[in-house]
Amino acid sequence: MKLERSDVPPEFIDLFVKTIGIRDEDFEIVLSHYSKQYLPAKYFFLREGEVSDRGAYVSKGCARNFTIDSNGGEHTHHFAFEGWVLGSLESVYCGTPSSFNIQALENCELLCFTKKSIDELEARFRKYKEWHIEKQRKAHHAVITRLLEVKTLSVEERYLKLIEKHPHIFQRISLQHIASFLDIEPPSLSRLRKRLHSR
Amino acid sequence: MKLERSDVPPEFIDLFVKTIGIRDEDFEIVLSHYSKQYLPAKYFFLREGEVSDRGAYVSKGCARNFTIDSNGGEHTHHFAFEGWVLGSLESVYCGTPSSFNIQALENCELLCFTKKSIDELEARFRKYKEWHIEKQRKAHHAVITRLLEVKTLSVEERYLKLIEKHPHIFQRISLQHIASFLDIEPPSLSRLRKRLHSR
Repeated sequence: MKLERSDVPPEFIDLFVKTIGIRDEDFEIVLSHYSKQYLPAKYFFLREGEVSDRGAYVSKGCARNFTIDSNGGEHTHHFAFEGWVLGSLESVYCGTPSSFNIQALENCELLCFTKKSIDELEARFRKYKEWHIEKQRKAHHAVITRLLEVKTLSVEERYLKLIEKHPHIFQRISLQHIASFLDIEPPSLSRLRKRLHSR
Repeated sequence: MKLERSDVPPEFIDLFVKTIGIRDEDFEIVLSHYSKQYLPAKYFFLREGEVSDRGAYVSKGCARNFTIDSNGGEHTHHFAFEGWVLGSLESVYCGTPSSFNIQALENCELLCFTKKSIDELEARFRKYKEWHIEKQRKAHHAVITRLLEVKTLSVEERYLKLIEKHPHIFQRISLQHIASFLDIEPPSLSRLRKRLHSR
């Protein structure tokens, strides 16, 4: 189904026209490389071990990225809200199996693309390619920062950083998944919250 | 001081001529953008909080990247050996203070570059720019993998991965720094090694 402007959120149009600087009349070309998909809560966008050249811009809803350890324990590494992009870098660019799962936590509306559509858009719009390189660099830096935090900060410090960045996260994400993100058990997270917010 | 081919290791020449595909006669142009620097063991290439637009290819020696937590504890995140590149992405590209320290663990011989030299080489050699983008993507993916490992694998599993990747690491890096990389105390690492290697 061919997408119209009215099918996508204004933030998505602004991203291409205002942020990246593609001419407004060229936005239809961008749109023709995307398709809309609904992913109900709890469904998977990608499973660990799968090879997929697909990614998606989250236009509604949220998702998490997680892995399962050798004892069957789940580890949530990342939450994606509106405006974020879902996908496995290694799978899209190198064709290797994804090292993690991506699961919808709410009913999601996604704008999907493929490696081929990125390549075509990059070939057509130089600005898009430059923006992509810059975005990649920032995302890389963000993962480095996260790694340093996971290794260096206490659970309390990481909790405070999380709610500073996403003040309303407890309204959208379950305690269980936030606890997994912070590497603690849900009852410990409840105690931590009670202690911090009763100060 | 102008660098000659004899001042750099053959691997550095191969990187540009064989891997990246820059013509052999153009290698002198590449060389003119690098300078040689000696960094004695224990000296810092970069300190947390510093802004620096410099990076360096390690032609001899090794270094570590570490941070200090609010209790004064050191956390080693990464070791760089010959052929690796030192530097802070955020500092080189965004001019923001580095979030970590880089310290030589052996006497190092470095081939240093600046943001300006990368920009000039990228503008002159398209292949170099393309390689750089690809390299960035791989480095990004490597940090994601490391983050998943830190969060998901046991210390024993991470130890085994480390010695699989760097079988001779104990001959070059002190037990203390390897323990810090694995987030355990040095005596625990000694016990772990004894237990695993007596099997």
